[in-house]
Parts: sequence; structure tokens; C-alpha cells
Amino acid sequence: MTIHRDNERVTRIQQALERAQLDAVACCFPSNVLLLSGYWPVIGSSIALATRDGKIILIVPEDEKVLAKQSWADEVRTFSGGSLEEIKKKAESARAPLVEIATSLNLFSNGKIGFESEDQYQPCSYASMHSFAPIIKEMVEQASYGAKLVSADALISTLRTTLTPGEITRLRSACAIAEQAYVVGKKNIRPDLKETELANFFRTPLSVPENENILRADGFVYCMSGPNAADASAAYQWSRSRRLADGDFVLIHCNSYADGFWTDITRTYILGKADDRKQNILDALLEARDAALAKIKPSVKASEVDRAARETMKERGFGKEFKHPTGHGVGFAAINHSAPPMLHPKSTDVLEEGMVFNVEPGFYEEGFGGARHCDMVLVTKTGAEVLTKFHDRTDELIII
Amino acid sequence: MTIHRDNERVTRIQQALERAQLDAVACCFPSNVLLLSGYWPVIGSSIALATRDGKIILIVPEDEKVLAKQSWADEVRTFSGGSLEEIKKKAESARAPLVEIATSLNLFSNGKIGFESEDQYQPCSYASMHSFAPIIKEMVEQASYGAKLVSADALISTLRTTLTPGEITRLRSACAIAEQAYVVGKKNIRPDLKETELANFFRTPLSVPENENILRADGFVYCMSGPNAADASAAYQWSRSRRLADGDFVLIHCNSYADGFWTDITRTYILGKADDRKQNILDALLEARDAALAKIKPSVKASEVDRAARETMKERGFGKEFKHPTGHGVGFAAINHSAPPMLHPKSTDVLEEGMVFNVEPGFYEEGFGGARHCDMVLVTKTGAEVLTKFHDRTDELIII
Repeated sequence: MTIHRDNERVTRIQQALERAQLDAVACCFPSNVLLLSGYWPVIGSSIALATRDGKIILIVPEDEKVLAKQSWADEVRTFSGGSLEEIKKKAESARAPLVEIATSLNLFSNGKIGFESEDQYQPCSYASMHSFAPIIKEMVEQASYGAKLVSADALISTLRTTLTPGEITRLRSACAIAEQAYVVGKKNIRPDLKETELANFFRTPLSVPENENILRADGFVYCMSGPNAADASAAYQWSRSRRLADGDFVLIHCNSYADGFWTDITRTYILGKADDRKQNILDALLEARDAALAKIKPSVKASEVDRAARETMKERGFGKEFKHPTGHGVGFAAINHSAPPMLHPKSTDVLEEGMVFNVEPGFYEEGFGGARHCDMVLVTKTGAEVLTKFHDRTDELIII
Repeated sequence: MTIHRDNERVTRIQQALERAQLDAVACCFPSNVLLLSGYWPVIGSSIALATRDGKIILIVPEDEKVLAKQSWADEVRTFSGGSLEEIKKKAESARAPLVEIATSLNLFSNGKIGFESEDQYQPCSYASMHSFAPIIKEMVEQASYGAKLVSADALISTLRTTLTPGEITRLRSACAIAEQAYVVGKKNIRPDLKETELANFFRTPLSVPENENILRADGFVYCMSGPNAADASAAYQWSRSRRLADGDFVLIHCNSYADGFWTDITRTYILGKADDRKQNILDALLEARDAALAKIKPSVKASEVDRAARETMKERGFGKEFKHPTGHGVGFAAINHSAPPMLHPKSTDVLEEGMVFNVEPGFYEEGFGGARHCDMVLVTKTGAEVLTKFHDRTDELIII
């Protein structure tokens, strides 16, 4: 599949460079290479450059050329990932194309180039990933013989936060694959399965998309059950060997991708007959979700959306058990709790059409268990659209 | 499970710091944090420090404290990964413990601290990973009020290359899990399955280890079949929707982990009746493997091992189809083609007892297909020990 040039994306990049008075921006974090070029690097050792006049250039290892052609880059330059004739570092191999590009773009001592200067979250695209991030500044500086490198983290973060219609279409595909995985996975919830075993039932369909336009799809699924589910409030999820038992909360968290666009989804099921408290908790989560959704539209403060969910949880008596913010940006990021818009009590972010984030009210009580309902939500012109519309009624979440 | 202090590892670190005249080394790449402390970070935003007098200190997000206690660090300091009261960057949050440690270790302007200055490969530990790598130099410099930061990449790479007996034990567990996955997966090879579907049969057992001492196990499996398998010579593997057909080469590549120790394994099966050429190719690969194994022992040049495998392939008429080096270091790395020892024609590496690498003769012919036999091999006092002894006879690789 060829990715058509996302003119809307390129225009936004140009405008951002214009505002920041940058001649170009150079990115090497894979999700930012995707942002600039439409190509999601496999191993990671790729560099994308975008210029203020709208030129997009990719530097990729030779082996990724086939896939990288499916970007909208005006030019794809390659470097050898290795040969039997010599042993050479990747950064050395990438130097020649980088110099050629700096030359052709005239990015010399008079140029001002933005780069990724900070630590960032990166979703996993491959078993083992490589990144030029620790040395990208030096690489671009050397290749351009003295262009001025300035931090572009804020610029990039802003660009990532609001998706173009083309990107939203791609993200919808990722959500559709994940939905199918939950449908299959749910059928396999039963007592005595290990958490790790159940997680596999949900994960397996993620890498077998029916949509033949998707080149690479897969993901991570974590199952946390019974008292273990209380730990799901932490920054990471973790499937263990605990066996599911009747009456358990069974929390299934999924981060999956389709060609670089990521989901962040959680459903919590009750296995067997639901006791009143557990059922109340699920009801409260869905109510908190609805309260958040009702608030969402352009120009609304992200903190207000958090407040709506938080107030509902408080009213239902579960205020202190809702331990984390209501959501954060997703799509280019899989999990990044600091990706705007942050639906956080102290957030200064304001919602805009095209933003995608998760809405994830949660309940966690040490010793008892935990539950979270996490949806992917798109801000539309007039409100909110849930991109993950499935298993969202209490009766659908009880497995009898 | 508590990890006992690996005194051998700590002694080697001390000796390396002594030789390099460093007071300490600070690492933030997860596999290097594992090397120094025995702890493999989940999300990645952890820092390990080791001093010349053998003190090991970990800085981890609060949420990882439970797991990080299972390191052998003398001290585990935590920072908040986030709160509802304020929005704070991780690098800011990690600053306080870093200052405390620099103070307690007296790492000030008189100190000389090694750090990871270069781009590196990192195996994936979680759906989304964070790393302080782009800013670790600045962070440590600031926290220590002017200690001298110097590149420690060579020192770290050397430490990673030769495993201690304790680390080899942990790596054996990873290999045992992978073996079990191949046994299960092989039973599911059949015509008409998609590559992506077959890969899942091999992957599923990786995350369900029988060994209850393993806290985190999982991995990546890629299936490349028929003509697609010719592309397996590339730097990345890729399962597609192609359906297996009778007579196919079915190449299964696996990178799996057990608590941070990684495997790199490939088996190539022939589905159905093997034609003579395909069977010859498998025979040649196993012969090349045996030739390499026969060479391996301490003090032998890595390039000689490569030559042994390469000569065998040439003699069998498959010289030009063996397109990549014979192997590279594994264990702390999943896939890193530049990890020493490099079994490469131009390598200057010399084998030592305790080194672990893969031996992976391959055959790739565009349009026809590809095959590779990749084992994990340990250098012993007197020779080579294969850590992945399964499916290693031609008759075991033909699926009838």
C-alpha cells in the first residue's frame, strides 16, 4: 500500500516551522519519523527531515527501503546496515546521506534546525530497537558544518497532539483490529486460566489483521486479575501466573498498533456472578466515562474533563480509589502519561478538534482488586467520538 | 525471587572502572541497568550507578520498586512517576535522588563518571519505553555539580560480552522457555496457515513459563515462508499474510526473554516433501554450523569461526547465498549485529570463556526462498556448548 502524501500534515509542519523560525526539523524517534514522513521505521535507525518549504526527506537503512517507499517522503536515501567487507558503525554509515541532504537543502552555518533534545517515550516496533537519539544533535551538526541545532520538542509534541483526517483513518484501523481481538479474547475468559494464558487469547488476533492494507500489526496485552488488578494503577501492566477464579475482576489492558498508530484500551470483566460492590464499581466507571465524554468538545479545558470523571467517582463513593489522571494523548504514542492533552487536574491543555486521547476512569483498592475502563476518544467539531465502541455496558462485561 | 548479588559481576565492574580510572559508571539503557544491578527496568526510566569500590545503586520510578528490590543493588532510590497534585517531568523527578546519591558517593567536581554516550540497540521490555539516554550526561553532570562525564561505551560493551556463571544460568532459563515454544509451535505447522498465524503458535508459550522463578517472560516470533524467506537476510524479520504451501521453507525466528536475558534463535522447516535442493541447503547449514562449533574455544579469533562456516557453505555451492556474518553477541542484547564477539570476516574479536553469541549460517535466494539455522552458543573452557539443542537434524526439520 502506498501512503498518499498527507498534505494537511505537511502544511501543519510548515506552519509550525514558520512560527518557530526554523529552516527544518530532524527527527529520529520512530513515532516522530512517522509524523513527518508517514513511514514508521522498523528498527529505528532512521532520520526524517522536514523543511519549511514542505520538503520531506527520509534516511533509512537499505533493508528498510521497501517499506520506506511507502512513505510520502520526496526523497528516500539509504545507508548500508552492514556488509561482509567491512565493520562500520551505523552512525558513520548514515553520515554520507546526511551530508548530501544538508548540502542539497543548503542547511549550513546559516541554517537553524530543530531536533529532539529530550527524553521521550517510544512504542516498541520490533524485538530490538536502535535509535540515533543520543547522538542526533552531533550527527546533524557535523553533517551541516555548523547549522544551529535548537530544541524542537514542544513543536513536535504539539504536532503529534492533533491528528489529521488521514491519520485518524489509520488510527481507526488500529482500533478495529483491537476490537476484533477483544471479541475473540472475551470468549476465552474462564476460571483456572492463568493471566498470561488469557492475555495470549486477546493478543493473538492483533497480529493477524483482516485488513490487507495493513503491513504491520501487533501489540501487547496484559491481564491483571483478582487482587493483582489493584496494581493496574501503576505505570506499567504485568500479566502473572495467577489463575482466574470465580468472582474476579479480570482487567485486560491492550496497546496495539497498525503501521505505527497505537491504541490504548482497557476493559474489565467480572468472571462469574458479580457481587454488588464489583457491579457498582463497573457502573461508576461507565458513568464517569459518560460524564467525561459529555464535557468533551473543542475549546474545553482538559482539566474540566478530568474533573467531570473525578466528581462522578467521588459521588459514587470511589473518589480516593481513582488514583490517576483521566487520560492523555494517544495515537503516535502507545502509553505516554505526559502526552498532551493531559486530562489531569492541573492540566493547562485545551481541547481541539482532531485530538485523540484516552478516557480511563479507574478504581484500585489494595487487597481487593482493580478495574479500569479505557477508551480511545476523538474530539470532533461538536463533541466526542469514541473510537473503541465495544464491551461498554455492565451486562457485556459480566462473564457468566 | 530475589536475585543474589552476582559477586563475579560486581568484581568485573570494579576491575573495569579501575583500569579506566573511573570513579563510577552511570547507565540508563535497560540492558545495562540489568548488567550493573541485576534489575531489568520495565519502562526504562531507571538509572544504575556502580562505583569503583563496588557499590551498586538504583534509581527507579516508585511503581517499579517492588520489582527493583529483586536486584542486588545496595540501595534503591525511587522517584514519583506522577501524581494528581502536580505535573512534573520524569527527569525533574529523578533529579532529587540523583543529587542525594552523588552527594553520598562524593561524586563532585573531583569525580570522573562513565556514561553511555552512543546510540545503542535496546531490546523491548514493554509496549512503550522511556529512556533518559538523550539527557543522561546533563542529568548526572548537574546532579554532581561538575563531575567529569566520559564515554564508557567500550567499557560497558566489554562487560556485556562475557557472561558470569550467574548470568549464564538466567540465560539458560530463557533458552529453555524458547525450546518449549518451538516444540509447541512445530506441531502447528501446516499448509494454508498464514505466516502471522503460525508465528503466534510459537510465540504464545513464551509468555507462559513453567519456571515460577521467572517474573517476566515473553518475546517476538517472526515467520517467513516460501519466497518471503529470502528476505530474512535483512536486518529485520517480518511475518506477513502469505499462506504456507506444501514444499515451502518455513523460517521461524525468535527473540525471547526471561527477566532481561534474551535469546536469538532461528529454525527453518520444510513443509511436506522436501525437494533435493532444499534438503541440501538444510544439510549445508547444519554442516556449516558444525564447522563453526568445531572451531570455537577460548583464544580463537572470531573471524576464524566465521571462515569455517563460510568455507563450508562455499564448498556446498552456497557461498554467495550466505549473505551475512556468522554471528554476534547475544544475551544482554536481543539482536545487535555489532555486539561483540562479531563472527565476521573482518572481526578483530577473540573468543573468551563465558562469551555467548549466536551461530547463524544462512541461505537466501531472491525468488526461491531462504533458510537459516541460528543457535545460541556459549564458549566453555575447552570448546562450545550449544544452549539451544533442539530441532537440529534435517529429519527433525521436515514436517510430513
